[in-house]
Amino acid sequence: MRMAAKLGILAGGGPLPGYLIEACRSSGRDVFVIAFEGQADADVVNAAPHAWVRLGAAEDALGRLRAENVEEIVMAGPVRRPTLAELRPDRRAAKFLARGLLNKGDNGLLGAIVRTLEEQEGFRVVGADTVLEYLRAPEGVFGQVEPDSGMREDIDEGVRVLRETGHLDIGQAVVVQQGIVLGLEAAEGTRRLIERCGDLRREGRGGVLVKLPKPGQEIRADMPTIGPETMSAATQAGLSGIAVAAGSTLVIDRAGLVESADRAGLFVIGIRPADIAGDGGTG
Amino acid sequence: MRMAAKLGILAGGGPLPGYLIEACRSSGRDVFVIAFEGQADADVVNAAPHAWVRLGAAEDALGRLRAENVEEIVMAGPVRRPTLAELRPDRRAAKFLARGLLNKGDNGLLGAIVRTLEEQEGFRVVGADTVLEYLRAPEGVFGQVEPDSGMREDIDEGVRVLRETGHLDIGQAVVVQQGIVLGLEAAEGTRRLIERCGDLRREGRGGVLVKLPKPGQEIRADMPTIGPETMSAATQAGLSGIAVAAGSTLVIDRAGLVESADRAGLFVIGIRPADIAGDGGTG
Repeated sequence: MRMAAKLGILAGGGPLPGYLIEACRSSGRDVFVIAFEGQADADVVNAAPHAWVRLGAAEDALGRLRAENVEEIVMAGPVRRPTLAELRPDRRAAKFLARGLLNKGDNGLLGAIVRTLEEQEGFRVVGADTVLEYLRAPEGVFGQVEPDSGMREDIDEGVRVLRETGHLDIGQAVVVQQGIVLGLEAAEGTRRLIERCGDLRREGRGGVLVKLPKPGQEIRADMPTIGPETMSAATQAGLSGIAVAAGSTLVIDRAGLVESADRAGLFVIGIRPADIAGDGGTG
Repeated sequence: MRMAAKLGILAGGGPLPGYLIEACRSSGRDVFVIAFEGQADADVVNAAPHAWVRLGAAEDALGRLRAENVEEIVMAGPVRRPTLAELRPDRRAAKFLARGLLNKGDNGLLGAIVRTLEEQEGFRVVGADTVLEYLRAPEGVFGQVEPDSGMREDIDEGVRVLRETGHLDIGQAVVVQQGIVLGLEAAEGTRRLIERCGDLRREGRGGVLVKLPKPGQEIRADMPTIGPETMSAATQAGLSGIAVAAGSTLVIDRAGLVESADRAGLFVIGIRPADIAGDGGTG
């Protein structure tokens, strides 16, 4: 095993950059964080050497990464699409954006960022899951609660809907209750999807959240992630459980998530739909 | 032209049943309304001979329609999916529902209702548009405001998304802003779709609402409809306009809708995507 090169973290919001910092620390790996202004959480990035950079300041960010001798980069945590006023792209960012990428779906935009970092800037881009192997969703039921046959049918329907809409690059998640699609994620994100499906809930067995990477999705840049917040939203909304793609989903604080799932009587399951990219699924 | 047979209106919510009553009255056509409890608006159905019937009381509804010598039926106005407790299906309704139809999308459920009314009960089912020819969306721009080229691109993207998701029987509407899908309708309905997209709005040119029948949709039972309320939600949400399918959309109070669209600077346009069923579109 080769000595791991210094890791650069491009930090968006949420706790994920902190998990990466922690993983580097405990394995003795050097790390440097580019913390995006208005996106990253100061409490999280303060735990490692870091620099605050405007999202549009590509020149600064790249220069800083090189000055720090970073070789490998992880993009971690959600980045809210900025307004142009917030973005104020420098010349380098403007050249990149001139390709009309701000008006692409996440796949288009993030895929282009990864390609540029690798092919033009010479970095290696890896997924957070390669650093945080232990955060990958396992296959099968996580906790005490098993989905019943009706819930499994809803999971299958959710998988079908996401497989057939995924190439449109709209969203990663869907809520299905008793065969009816209550909601399909687009720009609102998974938490708000779950919340609004709480209002649409029908009587009887609660719906299921299915969250999967889109076919062909650049998961190095935008890996589906769930955590205790997802579970608490799901519980509030009266869902019966959550299904994610085993292997290609990050699970933040699995112990905490499973504990609250067990307490609330919800299932959490890692599934392997046949056609999830790069997963060699078993159906 | 044959004498029009007595029209039976199966009345859900909203103003549409009232327009049908009015159209029958002004053409001297006999009419009888089955007003579904908890769905129809009393002020609307009071304008014609009518009977209040529980949604689950199929025997009552069919018996009454026959006693009134109704031959032709229109289903008009949205019907909220009832809880089973509200539904209390009689034997006839229960037999119908035993096929698991409550857990199908709208297409599946409404299509089965239409087939049963025609093939087993011997009624003719017609679309509200055949009675209300003048409410059909025309082709082209309705008011003073024209969509610019960017808005037209968003319309095209919305059409593409709806064409590719339509066979999943999820929803009729999508909001696209600058190439990004802000929201895709599912169980929440068009008004709530528009409202939540107001919160997701990006700066710059506002998004467009595209609302189209699903491919293969039983439009006799569930014709896409817009009206002044749609326009006021769109204005509130900062949209730049609305595109609907010419010919296969009902426009309630077009004069009022156009007036408020012109005032707010929004466009409304009837389009003919190539593949809208039965429309012989011109692209």
